[in-house]
Amino acid sequence: MIKIFSSSLRCRLPVLVAIFEVLLLVLYAMFVTYDDSTNAARQTNQTDPLQNSLYHVYPFFVDVQVMIFIGFGCLLAFMKQYGFGGMVFNFLTATFAIQWAVIVQGFFQFYHDGKIHVGVFNLLNAEFACAVVLISFGAILGRTSPIQLLVMALLEVPIFAVTEWAILKYLKINDAGGSIMIHIFACYFGLGVSTVLYRPCLNEGHSKEGTTYQSDILSVMGTLFLWVFWPSFNSSLTLPGDDQHRAIIHTFIGLSSSTLTAFALSALLNRKGKLTMADIQNVTLAGGVTVGASVDMMISPVAAFALGMIGCTSCMLGYKYLTPFMAKKLRIQDQCGIHNLHGLTGLISTTAGIICILIASEDTYGPSLYQTFAHRAPVEGDPRLKELQELIPGLNPGEGRSASDQALYQVAALGVSIGVSIAGGLLTGLVLSLPVLAQPPDEFCFDDTLYFEVPGEFDNNVLPTRNHDMVAITD
Amino acid sequence: MIKIFSSSLRCRLPVLVAIFEVLLLVLYAMFVTYDDSTNAARQTNQTDPLQNSLYHVYPFFVDVQVMIFIGFGCLLAFMKQYGFGGMVFNFLTATFAIQWAVIVQGFFQFYHDGKIHVGVFNLLNAEFACAVVLISFGAILGRTSPIQLLVMALLEVPIFAVTEWAILKYLKINDAGGSIMIHIFACYFGLGVSTVLYRPCLNEGHSKEGTTYQSDILSVMGTLFLWVFWPSFNSSLTLPGDDQHRAIIHTFIGLSSSTLTAFALSALLNRKGKLTMADIQNVTLAGGVTVGASVDMMISPVAAFALGMIGCTSCMLGYKYLTPFMAKKLRIQDQCGIHNLHGLTGLISTTAGIICILIASEDTYGPSLYQTFAHRAPVEGDPRLKELQELIPGLNPGEGRSASDQALYQVAALGVSIGVSIAGGLLTGLVLSLPVLAQPPDEFCFDDTLYFEVPGEFDNNVLPTRNHDMVAITD
Amino acid sequence: MIKIFSSSLRCRLPVLVAIFEVLLLVLYAMFVTYDDSTNAARQTNQTDPLQNSLYHVYPFFVDVQVMIFIGFGCLLAFMKQYGFGGMVFNFLTATFAIQWAVIVQGFFQFYHDGKIHVGVFNLLNAEFACAVVLISFGAILGRTSPIQLLVMALLEVPIFAVTEWAILKYLKINDAGGSIMIHIFACYFGLGVSTVLYRPCLNEGHSKEGTTYQSDILSVMGTLFLWVFWPSFNSSLTLPGDDQHRAIIHTFIGLSSSTLTAFALSALLNRKGKLTMADIQNVTLAGGVTVGASVDMMISPVAAFALGMIGCTSCMLGYKYLTPFMAKKLRIQDQCGIHNLHGLTGLISTTAGIICILIASEDTYGPSLYQTFAHRAPVEGDPRLKELQELIPGLNPGEGRSASDQALYQVAALGVSIGVSIAGGLLTGLVLSLPVLAQPPDEFCFDDTLYFEVPGEFDNNVLPTRNHDMVAITD
Repeated sequence: MIKIFSSSLRCRLPVLVAIFEVLLLVLYAMFVTYDDSTNAARQTNQTDPLQNSLYHVYPFFVDVQVMIFIGFGCLLAFMKQYGFGGMVFNFLTATFAIQWAVIVQGFFQFYHDGKIHVGVFNLLNAEFACAVVLISFGAILGRTSPIQLLVMALLEVPIFAVTEWAILKYLKINDAGGSIMIHIFACYFGLGVSTVLYRPCLNEGHSKEGTTYQSDILSVMGTLFLWVFWPSFNSSLTLPGDDQHRAIIHTFIGLSSSTLTAFALSALLNRKGKLTMADIQNVTLAGGVTVGASVDMMISPVAAFALGMIGCTSCMLGYKYLTPFMAKKLRIQDQCGIHNLHGLTGLISTTAGIICILIASEDTYGPSLYQTFAHRAPVEGDPRLKELQELIPGLNPGEGRSASDQALYQVAALGVSIGVSIAGGLLTGLVLSLPVLAQPPDEFCFDDTLYFEVPGEFDNNVLPTRNHDMVAITD
Repeated sequence: MIKIFSSSLRCRLPVLVAIFEVLLLVLYAMFVTYDDSTNAARQTNQTDPLQNSLYHVYPFFVDVQVMIFIGFGCLLAFMKQYGFGGMVFNFLTATFAIQWAVIVQGFFQFYHDGKIHVGVFNLLNAEFACAVVLISFGAILGRTSPIQLLVMALLEVPIFAVTEWAILKYLKINDAGGSIMIHIFACYFGLGVSTVLYRPCLNEGHSKEGTTYQSDILSVMGTLFLWVFWPSFNSSLTLPGDDQHRAIIHTFIGLSSSTLTAFALSALLNRKGKLTMADIQNVTLAGGVTVGASVDMMISPVAAFALGMIGCTSCMLGYKYLTPFMAKKLRIQDQCGIHNLHGLTGLISTTAGIICILIASEDTYGPSLYQTFAHRAPVEGDPRLKELQELIPGLNPGEGRSASDQALYQVAALGVSIGVSIAGGLLTGLVLSLPVLAQPPDEFCFDDTLYFEVPGEFDNNVLPTRNHDMVAITD
Repeated sequence: MIKIFSSSLRCRLPVLVAIFEVLLLVLYAMFVTYDDSTNAARQTNQTDPLQNSLYHVYPFFVDVQVMIFIGFGCLLAFMKQYGFGGMVFNFLTATFAIQWAVIVQGFFQFYHDGKIHVGVFNLLNAEFACAVVLISFGAILGRTSPIQLLVMALLEVPIFAVTEWAILKYLKINDAGGSIMIHIFACYFGLGVSTVLYRPCLNEGHSKEGTTYQSDILSVMGTLFLWVFWPSFNSSLTLPGDDQHRAIIHTFIGLSSSTLTAFALSALLNRKGKLTMADIQNVTLAGGVTVGASVDMMISPVAAFALGMIGCTSCMLGYKYLTPFMAKKLRIQDQCGIHNLHGLTGLISTTAGIICILIASEDTYGPSLYQTFAHRAPVEGDPRLKELQELIPGLNPGEGRSASDQALYQVAALGVSIGVSIAGGLLTGLVLSLPVLAQPPDEFCFDDTLYFEVPGEFDNNVLPTRNHDMVAITD
């Protein structure tokens, strides 16, 4: 049987984008309005413009923007003939994911009086939804068309948003750095998609899968941008003040110890005792994820240090042994090793978070305990709440949970995140395998010439020139 | 007739820079002093150091710095043999333009008691003047010597500064993102210069005009830096508070819809259905300009979305059809297509701004209307002013303009900006065509070997080695 | 006699890092705790979370992070076959240096009640210690193994920290931009190390020492990142308010005039009148160092302009004449020319600082004189202190020094900085020449293949393939 399909974007991409944009335009027109900090009519003679929420949120927003567009973009551009694809599809997917998440998260979290109310805070939240999509993208990098990526974002953002909303509303967990909700969700969603899109031939290695000297350097630059701004990522949704401050310190310490460990293990596990660039590009970052779930807690600096080391070690061993095993035995191909960098580390982070919850006490936190662990605050009407509110003005009533209650909810959230993401990923994978989505043929995986006008010199020297708009595949 | 001229920078560049620096040194010595927020002697026992204007302005200043030096620098480095030129001449020109603008704008806007008073706010303003020069530079990239670029900056900065001052002082317009004063001015000035520097031979295409895989990636990085920080650019001169917050939201939304549209159109307009890197590098940014003139108004988020789409579409069609037409029929060569990215989008932006001014009402804005549209506030002495000042403490008296008055002033400003910039550009072009300015010969356009010591490998492999310090041209 | 040694990192790097990490882990566990702004238990019902010191310090911290990891990283990646080494060893060394400095500086500056108290401010200080190590690294780039670099950081950080502490505690100098304590110390330390590691063969030039087109562009990007964020570096440890504001203005002006001058001199000193990329990459930055010691003083903007020009000129002449002289006659090899960019400019800066101290008066500064020059404030108990405290609430008692007293202390600090750094550098150099530290053989200097898995295309085309894990050297 011969299946003919085209990988040309000529009709499909414009049509798909046109549909998305008309949809977004209608949704923005019907539902999106300004929130109190962007609405001119809501400013009164009591308003101090310099107290606008903008000034607290925007610096973190910009840092995360740099991570998403430049950090991820460069990091994913590590392949020798897929630099355009890595950087540019990241740009496309991220842009769409954020726009879409503003709407979807808006309905769940910022909807009242018939409208979604937006400000920079919504954009910051949408960036986290975007990060989820981009992490999942890492599993299938080079094996998917931009059309597939947009469809993935279209499906993943709502599945994520509803999970996030359910966890925040019903389970109410502590997860400042997003280990459970961002990293684990993104990882298992991506692996779910990847499982459906399994290509046996790629297990043998692909001639275009390597790097060049330049692409390796570019990718390290991406790593450095992620590294430098990761403290902003992990702290941007914490409580202001000492919580946010701790999140920054812990992330920095975790990243540092993770980086040192990565260098050591890279040399140790290489039979010639040399450093491997893929390790520098990825494993150094493991600490940033590993500290995530407990990043705003009083875990003590040394715990952040230890978490960075542990996360890095498991991530490195994952790259070395688990990823090849999964690809060969479990038919799960994980191009960028997101299971190592986001999955394993996310699990460690969740575990660490639970331990920290169990041992947290007023001795260590003072009354702030009921801020950092907001759901442990007494319920409305409890006389203990009044007492605490004298110590902490503005403390919100909570759920009156004990430490072990909270720990159980964390476990439940982990289960929900893994369960929904695997199911959602598999489902999304099925949609992505529709032939109409312009999936690249095996021989043009990791190859920019399929979707881009590539400058001549590259075309001539490195690749055979032939027409690959129409490809015949026999199965 | 044989005209012998040298393209060596050996004497000319040092002499020119020496003149500039002595001039600047004298002007700084005579006229530049500290403003109230940088002068130690002006601090009193009432001063709260943390309320220094620095903390409000500096974050935006730094973001714009990144755009100017890194964003523009990388974006302009897209040519295969002109990466040094794009990035390094941008560095040189930007540095000089800012220094010079501090003086020139200083005389017009920050001069009192016989001195120009400086703080970070002056530098931020000077960066906008610098952006004007760099946009104009885009029209003539690769066809000009660094000496010509410095002379262009020398002339363009004062022409811009006097126009800006006249518009701000006499016409008093709303143009937060600088569509009229920055983008349109820069565009038509650049095209004016380019017209005079017309080179027929370049219309046939030039062997060195292409890109490489690496240079395309570098240029996309420039785009990403511009994209990420553009909200800071568009909002940095707005009123603090909700106005600035809206400017950020609108710019982000406009850029996003513009980016999606650019991908769709790029695939649609390519006959093989592939993406063209030049589109990704440039057209994605169109939305940032298009929202400019109305960026701080209550236009509603959906309007920002629509403006991004419209701006992007006209920009893309401009690249496809207008730029080649202008080069061939009108003898206006526009190397980077600034007419598409800054001219057409600027015109759309201006029109949108006028419409938004005409429909703005107290229903939408509340009394803040008279802040956002400061010139519609009642004049000094009007009893209505007192009433409004109770609602908005510190409201300044305005001009008592109606919406249509304001719209007419916007039109007038547009006319002034276009008129002065074309005239100024043509005049500057005439000066730049003086042979003493070391204009590169046709065959060494887009060629770094003319002005730089280029590493050997490049010289040997890609270019014929010959002495091009002295070139004979016959006409 | 034949000495066999291996340059494999396989055992040495992991063992060394393991030792470091266990050591750090123990020290963190025993001594590191939260400071008042990161400790939940220290927040009271009077605490305003938005006044947490985080919000003042973190923006500057992030800017300096970008400089250290991305700016330095790219700048040092300028060699054709040492891009990995430049960027990645910078990453490794910087990460370790900061972690280590948190402990070492912590004992000297943030130790009380048996604990080192940490917050972002400690990390910011540690970054300065890290900058010292990275500057020194510039002298020996390409000639050292990562093991040597880690050992250098291990030794240099405490030597620096104790010197810094002694100067701050006993000499009490004005040096906001760190000219004396950072740049001069780092420079002479690096030269000390380099002297011991002298390799005669490198004076003849080394076949791998050149640049490529791509590596030159990458390095300019590093320069631009350093340039853009340098005002944050120079101002981050000044007093908030007008002092910090002046530091930013002066740094910007100094860098600008230095950049213009560098372009002029580069063309002037090249016999073909062309620009040399190494000048653009390095000499443009000289102004940032030169304004350092007086950066927060009322030196007037024109003085910053002049300092930039003077610093740049001496730096450029240093590169042209002094570096080759030192290498050949004094046996001091200075790979990146740190003596020009940090040493000469540091000396000029120190001199300028002393002059500014001598001419500073209450006429210019008002009572703020006793804040900017804190050690000139009257001593505790002096009735003049009370008077001043009415003008400047919160003024701390000082040492009652005169201007010339202060100048002498500056001279003393300069002497201490130079003396300790040379001695420390020589000593460290001796340690680094231990054969166990995997020093690269001459032929593999500036060569990534020694320590990295380099992608095939590079290995095959550019380099002879041979086994260089074991190298035999005869002496």
